[in-house]
Amino acid sequence: MPYRAPVDEYRFLFDHIVGLSHVVDTDRFAEATPDMTAAILSEAARLCEEVLYPLQRSGDLHPAKLENGVVRTSPGYADGYRAIADGGWVSISAHPDHGGMGLPMTVTTAVNEMMSSACLSLQLNPLMTQGQIEALEHHASDHLKATYLPKLVSGAWAGTMNLTEPQAGSDVGALRSKAEPMGDGTYALTGQKIYISWGDNDFTENVCHLVLARLPDGVPGTKGISLFLVPKFIPDENGAPGKQNSLKVVSLEHKMGLHGSPTAVMQYDGAIGWLVGEAHDGMRAMFTMMNNARLGVGGQGIGIAEGAYQHALAYAMDRKQGRTPVQGGPGSIIEHADVRRMLATMKADIFAARAIALACAQAIDMQTATDKPHWAARAAFLTPIAKAFGTDTGIAVAEMGVQVHGGMGFIEETGAAQYSRDVRVTAIYEGTNGIQAMDLAARKLMDGGEAAYALLDEIEAQAEAARASLPELAEPVWQAAESLREAVDWMLGHQDLNQRFAGAAPFLRGFARVLGGHFHLKAALTEAGDGPRTRLARFYITRLLPEHAGLLAHATQGATDLYALTPEDFAA
Amino acid sequence: MPYRAPVDEYRFLFDHIVGLSHVVDTDRFAEATPDMTAAILSEAARLCEEVLYPLQRSGDLHPAKLENGVVRTSPGYADGYRAIADGGWVSISAHPDHGGMGLPMTVTTAVNEMMSSACLSLQLNPLMTQGQIEALEHHASDHLKATYLPKLVSGAWAGTMNLTEPQAGSDVGALRSKAEPMGDGTYALTGQKIYISWGDNDFTENVCHLVLARLPDGVPGTKGISLFLVPKFIPDENGAPGKQNSLKVVSLEHKMGLHGSPTAVMQYDGAIGWLVGEAHDGMRAMFTMMNNARLGVGGQGIGIAEGAYQHALAYAMDRKQGRTPVQGGPGSIIEHADVRRMLATMKADIFAARAIALACAQAIDMQTATDKPHWAARAAFLTPIAKAFGTDTGIAVAEMGVQVHGGMGFIEETGAAQYSRDVRVTAIYEGTNGIQAMDLAARKLMDGGEAAYALLDEIEAQAEAARASLPELAEPVWQAAESLREAVDWMLGHQDLNQRFAGAAPFLRGFARVLGGHFHLKAALTEAGDGPRTRLARFYITRLLPEHAGLLAHATQGATDLYALTPEDFAA
Repeated sequence: MPYRAPVDEYRFLFDHIVGLSHVVDTDRFAEATPDMTAAILSEAARLCEEVLYPLQRSGDLHPAKLENGVVRTSPGYADGYRAIADGGWVSISAHPDHGGMGLPMTVTTAVNEMMSSACLSLQLNPLMTQGQIEALEHHASDHLKATYLPKLVSGAWAGTMNLTEPQAGSDVGALRSKAEPMGDGTYALTGQKIYISWGDNDFTENVCHLVLARLPDGVPGTKGISLFLVPKFIPDENGAPGKQNSLKVVSLEHKMGLHGSPTAVMQYDGAIGWLVGEAHDGMRAMFTMMNNARLGVGGQGIGIAEGAYQHALAYAMDRKQGRTPVQGGPGSIIEHADVRRMLATMKADIFAARAIALACAQAIDMQTATDKPHWAARAAFLTPIAKAFGTDTGIAVAEMGVQVHGGMGFIEETGAAQYSRDVRVTAIYEGTNGIQAMDLAARKLMDGGEAAYALLDEIEAQAEAARASLPELAEPVWQAAESLREAVDWMLGHQDLNQRFAGAAPFLRGFARVLGGHFHLKAALTEAGDGPRTRLARFYITRLLPEHAGLLAHATQGATDLYALTPEDFAA
Repeated sequence: MPYRAPVDEYRFLFDHIVGLSHVVDTDRFAEATPDMTAAILSEAARLCEEVLYPLQRSGDLHPAKLENGVVRTSPGYADGYRAIADGGWVSISAHPDHGGMGLPMTVTTAVNEMMSSACLSLQLNPLMTQGQIEALEHHASDHLKATYLPKLVSGAWAGTMNLTEPQAGSDVGALRSKAEPMGDGTYALTGQKIYISWGDNDFTENVCHLVLARLPDGVPGTKGISLFLVPKFIPDENGAPGKQNSLKVVSLEHKMGLHGSPTAVMQYDGAIGWLVGEAHDGMRAMFTMMNNARLGVGGQGIGIAEGAYQHALAYAMDRKQGRTPVQGGPGSIIEHADVRRMLATMKADIFAARAIALACAQAIDMQTATDKPHWAARAAFLTPIAKAFGTDTGIAVAEMGVQVHGGMGFIEETGAAQYSRDVRVTAIYEGTNGIQAMDLAARKLMDGGEAAYALLDEIEAQAEAARASLPELAEPVWQAAESLREAVDWMLGHQDLNQRFAGAAPFLRGFARVLGGHFHLKAALTEAGDGPRTRLARFYITRLLPEHAGLLAHATQGATDLYALTPEDFAA
């Protein structure tokens, strides 16, 4: 059951839904011509289909192991990584000044997504490196840039992010790791970090850790945190990996899925590091990296959804069972109404989640190229939605993929279950989806709702314009946008943020539902008659979009009743 | 993190929600006095908390294995099973004439649920035996009853169900297994059966298989199927296990979860069996068994939900992270709005699913005791809802349990992930939840909606009566019931069943949502003021019940648009 990268789908979304042409019209991304993009997509597709996808099950069956302090990666992963690095895929969005391809984030998002479909556990490695490259590009000294960026961009070295400590998870400000200035421009890092994805490997020459820690004069909380680059091997005067640093992998976690990705507990014992950005300003640098990583994780969810969908579709087309209502049809289970409902739901939600993620990526590109604040605001607003809805869709679609397989879905050899187990963590890492929802309902509305209302205005303008040609699709989208506008009004009317937080998760999902309707309508509008885009849009708008009503009702109930529940109420 | 059986909760539901007293008022169940029930629950609770719960992780870490044709069960399972059998828990609902306790299904459902919370993979064994006992009680000859029932009731022998074949899953009528009459009243069974839960074990003296097969004169399809009892060891003249029968376990499946339960491929090569019920009437006998097994599987979902909830609640009460908005509170993550939302959702949905399951069980008991057709209709109507909503709730609650744990949720040692992996199959076996939905939308409305409308009348009558005391809760429930009534009308207005099937799954879930509102309102009505039941009911009715609107909109879209999607539309 092969994986086929949905190249034509990305092209459609680039051309007709998110407007990649506006990105290419800028000086910064002028080289990303349609021909160039087409070549990139088809080359990446080949890598994913032929090289990476065969590794997916290998990683699950043969997890990364820690042997005598050395991480041994899953069979084939070293070769897979080499193919990624040699193709330049680690750094397609890195600036050409540092050896990157300098491609738009829109294209990068599509490529990252297909790598996630093919082999999520391996893809997580270059995704972390991409984030590190970005953080260094924006915040590192020229010396650090010159030493590290070429190695990271080529994939010779890999990057990691070290935020979490046992007592400091979602609350990063509680971290205890320390950095002592050594007087020579370096710092000695001491502390323990947990949940470090790809904390080590046996296929890159070096592993570079971005570590959050507190300087001696750092105040408690997030304002006293600084960011350091701490390599596994300290570069010598020629920039080659030299002396082993005082850091080690203490243990690897035994996880529900993503077995091919070693999740490490890292110990730093006076390890040498270099400050990235200003002292005590580590959170700002980390957020540069984290925002795009959040979009990247949303893309992981979509990638798994696509893989699980293709897997389930192939099974449903092949598997014969029972009398179907279709005369002369293939007699396969896809002809049963409930199986069709599941597959159509999967496909319609993948489109919605992908459109949201690519719209977010396009806004990042426009911000990069034009420096206009409304693009930055758009990107910031869409990021938590892309992350949470992308990963929730990944989980839900993988779940449905298991169900489509019936009894076979529960059997590991089928592969459906692995998608479900692998994707589960994406709703947790890079900020849980609850954190994303709080970010949306609080920080992303600090502009007085400007970014939210700008989106709503676009949604309603398109729906109004579509009333003539597609009234039965345009009207529900317009109505849903009006309900969403009321929910945004409600949020802005409550300055006590906890009132918003009580309904933040359904608010985020309701927003995504409406955006999905908007993008489906946009896709339908590209067709003159009743084509495939219109048929899928009709499915989404009549059957899935109505979910927004219940979500927005939940979103606007406030915190009072929720906090009226006592500890005894929960325990009873 | 111990498991505590929710004994007080069952008592509340018995006394105030489902009316166990009406069951006890019948001659058949007169012995199930409140004192007796209390003693049963507390004894079962002790077994579950102290003996079975410690086995949960053992089964996951050390799956059942097939060694030289012999199934080796997980460490401790033999002792755990012995404790279940010695306590009489295999057969608490079996008729006293055969050595059972003869307790109501309402009480059995609570006991089965707590065994599922404690150790689902082991509980599945006696659940299968319970179903076999029931099938034999109703359909077997006196000779078979005398030989097998005492052994099954005591737990000395275990029972299995053999329906599925590779080409005959949801479509049982496609089965190919054959039964040849031997002329001496026995039959020679030949064929392969798959997904046989507890197909063998190393702790009972015998394993008795109920096998569906076709006699030589059996017509194709379900009408040509007969049911046979095929023991692993053929009883000798004294009824003791004698000669090994010609059947074997070919292999065990490698599953996503439920590792402690051996799922077997069974091979029958002219194995000796006895006919149960009439020739060619096997499906009727199987349905006797299957209906209650469906309720039992719904209870498995609820049991896992309860276990996962307790696990997540304990973590959320203990784990400190970030500033919480509660002054002087414990500072634990349960004080964060989004974590509270998840835990309250879990608790509110467990109450709803449990009330539905126990209402179904109570209807079965009333039918057993009074033989009144409206109780049979009520039981039949609620069974698919109890199965699908119970298991969907199990999956959703276990999923939220993982999320409440944050990063720890993805780590296997935490235990949260196991609930999620173990429960997944419950939405698939005993008829997928899609099959349950089709059953509800078609067969269970063949009475012209009588059973459905009777429930709706009860829901609306209670809501009307509650308008004076709890208007803000009563009104939404009444409104939701009216919407549901329209959806039932819509279903009955479409005689082409495929029109119904296209929305059957959201129809079932919408029905469950409204029933949940009804039972929460009923719970709130037991309190004079604003107590814990009322607070939880308010959470459910204002935040979760609104989901019904989107579901019922989806439910009533019909099949036309869904079938307008072409194979190319899905593939594109």
